[in-house]
Amino acid sequence: MDFNHKKVLITGGLGFIGSHLTRRLVGLGALVTLVDSLTPECGGNLFNVNGIEDKVKVNVSDVCDARSMQYLIQGQDYLFNLAGQTSHMDSMEDPERDMEINCRAQLSMLESCRKYNPGVKIVFASTRQIYGKPDHLPVDEKHLLRPVDVNGIHKIAGEGYHILYNNVYGIRACALRLTNTYGPRMRIKDARQTFLGLWIKRILEGKPFEVWGGEQRRDFTYVDDAVDAFLLAAASEESNGKVFNLGGREVINLRDLAHLLVAVHGGGAFETREFPEDRKRIDIGDYYADDRYIRADLGWEPKISLREGLARTLAFFREHEDHYR
Amino acid sequence: MDFNHKKVLITGGLGFIGSHLTRRLVGLGALVTLVDSLTPECGGNLFNVNGIEDKVKVNVSDVCDARSMQYLIQGQDYLFNLAGQTSHMDSMEDPERDMEINCRAQLSMLESCRKYNPGVKIVFASTRQIYGKPDHLPVDEKHLLRPVDVNGIHKIAGEGYHILYNNVYGIRACALRLTNTYGPRMRIKDARQTFLGLWIKRILEGKPFEVWGGEQRRDFTYVDDAVDAFLLAAASEESNGKVFNLGGREVINLRDLAHLLVAVHGGGAFETREFPEDRKRIDIGDYYADDRYIRADLGWEPKISLREGLARTLAFFREHEDHYR
Repeated sequence: MDFNHKKVLITGGLGFIGSHLTRRLVGLGALVTLVDSLTPECGGNLFNVNGIEDKVKVNVSDVCDARSMQYLIQGQDYLFNLAGQTSHMDSMEDPERDMEINCRAQLSMLESCRKYNPGVKIVFASTRQIYGKPDHLPVDEKHLLRPVDVNGIHKIAGEGYHILYNNVYGIRACALRLTNTYGPRMRIKDARQTFLGLWIKRILEGKPFEVWGGEQRRDFTYVDDAVDAFLLAAASEESNGKVFNLGGREVINLRDLAHLLVAVHGGGAFETREFPEDRKRIDIGDYYADDRYIRADLGWEPKISLREGLARTLAFFREHEDHYR
Repeated sequence: MDFNHKKVLITGGLGFIGSHLTRRLVGLGALVTLVDSLTPECGGNLFNVNGIEDKVKVNVSDVCDARSMQYLIQGQDYLFNLAGQTSHMDSMEDPERDMEINCRAQLSMLESCRKYNPGVKIVFASTRQIYGKPDHLPVDEKHLLRPVDVNGIHKIAGEGYHILYNNVYGIRACALRLTNTYGPRMRIKDARQTFLGLWIKRILEGKPFEVWGGEQRRDFTYVDDAVDAFLLAAASEESNGKVFNLGGREVINLRDLAHLLVAVHGGGAFETREFPEDRKRIDIGDYYADDRYIRADLGWEPKISLREGLARTLAFFREHEDHYR
């Protein structure tokens, strides 16, 4: 993987995963431009590029802004397309806004690539949410897609556009279906990215956090492992036109995860409660990924255990929590 | 199935299938309101309600017009949601316009139902295009969706919204995945609905029509059979939250279909040619539906043979072709 002097555009680059990708790429000598709208509901945070401000170009604009994207895409070798709305609740409350961010913006971005930079290689951040409630476990990429919210429907469209533009126009693109990604710089002020963010915020405040249900089994990807996957997918021609699940090193139920978090933090408490009625209807139960394709095709392997990942995450937020409120 | 005095809204009601549905429902005593934008690229045609103008309300407006839909949806017992853009080429040339019609309008319509008429029952016209190139034949509803054009991606979203609103909000909705539907009043001035329209136009003009490829096997639904399916789906509670393939009585390859058309017409000629390069990339090869679910769950059965259906179609257009140029 040689990213030295390569030109890279990262949408959602001030967000959680985007900023980790930025830091890694800067370290590898890439010339990185970030695009971020800094929309409060999304994950962008200027502190995420603290210390590397002079080594990246930060362009504050919305991916829905076609003129801005048309300009920014030109000359880029890689596009990591991470901008998006990921909140279940927001997508149900304002489905048209979710469509603007997750459909129109992606379509507009791909049209810009087609017209101004068809040689770019794109990696799109998709999500396991699009599977809905699994028929069988682990869930592989051939599992049916039955999204349980508007956000899932639009993420399917976003992924679909990328694969279509690869197949029809030869613009090399692939998608990673992320599961719960966690780590330093994740959004913790609410549950818009994952419930785990809220757990971490509460435990650091010395307050009990809430576990809904508890029996559901899930997998978790530490953010550095997710970054590995993005870079491998970008560097490989094997990935073109494909979608890959990411998984993690462990599968764990939420009650055990809560106990682990308390153990790693060295204290803290949680309450288990029933799902609220409106959430229960869309609860997907157990989910964990079959990620053998990305392991086989791209040589990806998650390296960080859950215990180690939680320890690093807590350590980061103990020091920097004031920037993530 | 009792539609007597029932209030029915049909979007795309001046179109091919919509107008047949209208005629049937008027005959069953329903109080029908049609919505149609009369957009030239879509199938709306005022001649389609020739002779029943006094028995229906025709409201010319775009399904994207939220205010219009909010008003029209109120008090309806049934919504047959057939408005849409179906052209492959148009969707690739103007993907954002395709998104407006096939995503935003559907979402906006469903939001109107949620706010102003959550008791309505909806049947949505989906399409077999969303499957893309089949992995196996016949194709059942559990087949993966891998659309080969932007239109297919947006039709998946449109279908997804309906199933989601059924599951989350209890607004009863189902979707029919139509295959090649044909019959009187179909669009014949171009191939925007199906290539068969163009064949019929050419043969009636006494000109040879073009068969691309020829070996591809397909199934065809005569429009009266499709109307049966819409009515059965509307009347049944068994359909809620489900998607159903429609098929036909016969599976036939395109060369044999061309011969059959010439035989039924009693004359005519065609030329077989290779797929143009840009179409070849998205050619799906053979497709025919496994439609056992709609037969079992709703008791649907296609009644009209291809020979009979083509004969009726040709007879109609011999008389009325001037209204469909």
